[in-house]
Amino acid sequence: MERALVTASARELRLRPLRGIPLVRPGDDLAGLLAAAAREDGLVLSGGVLVVCQKVVSKAEGRLVTLSSVNPSELARRLAAEDGKDPRHLEVILRETARVVRRGPGVLVCETRHGFVCANAGVDLSNAPGEDVAVLLPEDPDASARRLRAALALPARPAPGVIVSDTFGRTWRRGVTDVAIGCAGVAGIVDLRGTEDALGREMQVTEVAVVDELAAAAELVMGKASGVPVAVVRGVDPAWLRDGNVLDEVVRHPNDDLFR
Amino acid sequence: MERALVTASARELRLRPLRGIPLVRPGDDLAGLLAAAAREDGLVLSGGVLVVCQKVVSKAEGRLVTLSSVNPSELARRLAAEDGKDPRHLEVILRETARVVRRGPGVLVCETRHGFVCANAGVDLSNAPGEDVAVLLPEDPDASARRLRAALALPARPAPGVIVSDTFGRTWRRGVTDVAIGCAGVAGIVDLRGTEDALGREMQVTEVAVVDELAAAAELVMGKASGVPVAVVRGVDPAWLRDGNVLDEVVRHPNDDLFR
Repeated sequence: MERALVTASARELRLRPLRGIPLVRPGDDLAGLLAAAAREDGLVLSGGVLVVCQKVVSKAEGRLVTLSSVNPSELARRLAAEDGKDPRHLEVILRETARVVRRGPGVLVCETRHGFVCANAGVDLSNAPGEDVAVLLPEDPDASARRLRAALALPARPAPGVIVSDTFGRTWRRGVTDVAIGCAGVAGIVDLRGTEDALGREMQVTEVAVVDELAAAAELVMGKASGVPVAVVRGVDPAWLRDGNVLDEVVRHPNDDLFR
Repeated sequence: MERALVTASARELRLRPLRGIPLVRPGDDLAGLLAAAAREDGLVLSGGVLVVCQKVVSKAEGRLVTLSSVNPSELARRLAAEDGKDPRHLEVILRETARVVRRGPGVLVCETRHGFVCANAGVDLSNAPGEDVAVLLPEDPDASARRLRAALALPARPAPGVIVSDTFGRTWRRGVTDVAIGCAGVAGIVDLRGTEDALGREMQVTEVAVVDELAAAAELVMGKASGVPVAVVRGVDPAWLRDGNVLDEVVRHPNDDLFR
């Protein structure tokens, strides 16, 4: 896998929310909405990284399930009853789940078909366009990012990097943070192997998940409650703006994982 | 625990590395070095958040162990032999460890006495002031942050928020990211409970670990290889600049943890 070597970052990193994006509906031209909002805001996307919430990507792609159409299985009914939840929500979660990694009070920690490990297999009810709609993760979030990036390219200018982000919990630490579930035109992992630290010793810590750090940084300006689903990052090290993806670079193979 | 409600973030977030900090040695006045570097750079710290690498904090506090002074136990010798490591390094790791959570190929995932779960109990050899010195985590990183913050306060100006950051691995995802191990004058967790999302539905995801997102963002401009151990963040939501700490707010109690 191609990986960029990090270069000393002399630059200032700047993050801004991208305002003016209307509520997104299935079939909407999300790239068109993003480009229009950037034009309106006077923001240049080329050379930057666009971080887009999973939820608007999923909505544009029609990854929605109307709960009234769902007939919950016996397992979904039992889990829902034990946790005081909607059995139809549980049914959708189980359909998106490759494996339940842990079950805790009121939460299923699931491995999705992509290999993400997250609560409820990423199936969310909040911010959905109706009370009875579940929003699923994109089928292939890296491909979603690639499509957005291609559609945002302007003639004779480098296309921006694109990150599709979602909000995950963590082991051992309270609170959620945003991570990348897909990316295009930006590194997933930046490899420091072979570089030397400030004192000339070979470094022990080698691979930095810059795509997750960018997603986390972007969350700080999006604000979950303010309804701004996109942020623009400027000043990213140009060496990081290369082909990249989350599934191959960032998702750890179960065989290398001590906690699955 | 006091927690700020998040407000819609209209602002631009800006991150800059703080250059000109010399190699830090035990007993150094770290706050003095930071203030001098900021003056030199024309950076105003008040109203911002200073993110400081654990390693310089630990060095200033003298949290160093000379390996030649360490007499490894039988257990340290055995683990080191199996993994091809320095038994004295293993001995220091075990002394800093409250509990070994997992042992994988070449890595011990340890719960430290603080309650952090991380590789090698946070004991690091890279960037140390000599080949034979191990750098330990601060005794109380929140107190380290509070002391730095107090020493950085200027008359008639709010002191900056301070975060002590370190680089941790994660479950299920490859690559490391920076997280907060201590903070002062900045929220650990921002609570969204009771606020409503953009469509007026009560939110399901409630608590955002903004202190970890700030640490991750700061890593993007510090650059592990460039030897810049401090970043300054401007444009942070003023509601987040309140009393905060990592150990009480962010570290998950083992009883609430599904992965320990």
